[in-house]
Amino acid sequence: MAGVYEGPVQKLIDELGRLPGVGPKSAQRIAYHLLKIPPEDARRLARAIDDVKERVGWCRRCFNIAEGELCAICRDERRDATLVCVVEEPRDTVAVERTQEYKGLYHVLQGAISPIEGIGPEQLRVKELLARVGDEGITEVILATNPNIEGEATAMYLARLLRPLGVKVTRPASGLPVGGDLEYADEVTLGRALEGRRQVEA
Amino acid sequence: MAGVYEGPVQKLIDELGRLPGVGPKSAQRIAYHLLKIPPEDARRLARAIDDVKERVGWCRRCFNIAEGELCAICRDERRDATLVCVVEEPRDTVAVERTQEYKGLYHVLQGAISPIEGIGPEQLRVKELLARVGDEGITEVILATNPNIEGEATAMYLARLLRPLGVKVTRPASGLPVGGDLEYADEVTLGRALEGRRQVEA
Repeated sequence: MAGVYEGPVQKLIDELGRLPGVGPKSAQRIAYHLLKIPPEDARRLARAIDDVKERVGWCRRCFNIAEGELCAICRDERRDATLVCVVEEPRDTVAVERTQEYKGLYHVLQGAISPIEGIGPEQLRVKELLARVGDEGITEVILATNPNIEGEATAMYLARLLRPLGVKVTRPASGLPVGGDLEYADEVTLGRALEGRRQVEA
Repeated sequence: MAGVYEGPVQKLIDELGRLPGVGPKSAQRIAYHLLKIPPEDARRLARAIDDVKERVGWCRRCFNIAEGELCAICRDERRDATLVCVVEEPRDTVAVERTQEYKGLYHVLQGAISPIEGIGPEQLRVKELLARVGDEGITEVILATNPNIEGEATAMYLARLLRPLGVKVTRPASGLPVGGDLEYADEVTLGRALEGRRQVEA
């Protein structure tokens, strides 16, 4: 079917189709949308992508997204630096922030242990977490990984490593719907779950 | 919630959220995906967007997408220039091409008449279609707008304008599921519908 799509359009459809949750039909719809809108609107999206790749990286301390060396939360001196909330992804810090219940710092693992996907502790920011607990005067680590199989396994694994370091290890109270993603929890449920967190008996 | 998202990330989420079919949660997921992938992969998407806006426009003749003055189909001298298939969107030409039943040219209206959305004939490429029928020795116009309310109304409107010009006006046979989009028809159904097209009694 050569000649049906013009080269640059097919290339754009291919690139869009690589994005998570974008199938071939959506990619085609988005590509035509980009063709139709004013050039400055399309270029604003392209520039936003470039900007993120040029200006945004990982926080040197907690591996959240950061413009510069440290993320906005690690730069904020009013946060309680004795408390660290461990999450899987940067978006999970946003979910916890929305509760307005939490004033400590974060540690973003950038994933969860998943033997099926070939992700072990060495692919995650586990080493860096242990170093922080040793160096930063942290007294409590909240393991707020997702309440699903991978998240639970990751929490259990971390609890076993952390307890010998003499730090209090907690997990948000059940109340989160099991099998779901932290990201989709509503503020009240997640806030209560954090409030009622209990020590892990690993 | 200032400081939760860093500036360029929020900007990217906002831009992604403007795309069709991309809600706030998908925009966030795509943004984090773009943050995580190697810079060269993200830049390939940004470049594909820029390329499309720089190199691709509308065919001067049929208003399909085109790199240069004319689209690939209008440039192809083996196509039957006496036959024109009128469709709503560029993607519809792809659906018709897939049938391998059609050897004529196209005319892309770039929409359908929709009083609810405030789209009248003057927002579509109707004037240009009438000019082509006058100038290009066209003997038959196939009105292959979508088999839904807007598409049917558009076909009826065009049929009334085209019949006084002494051109044969047809519409693909029913067989297409009513209420759907041309884009989603399978090749066999759409091919048969084109084969069994009949004159419009407007």
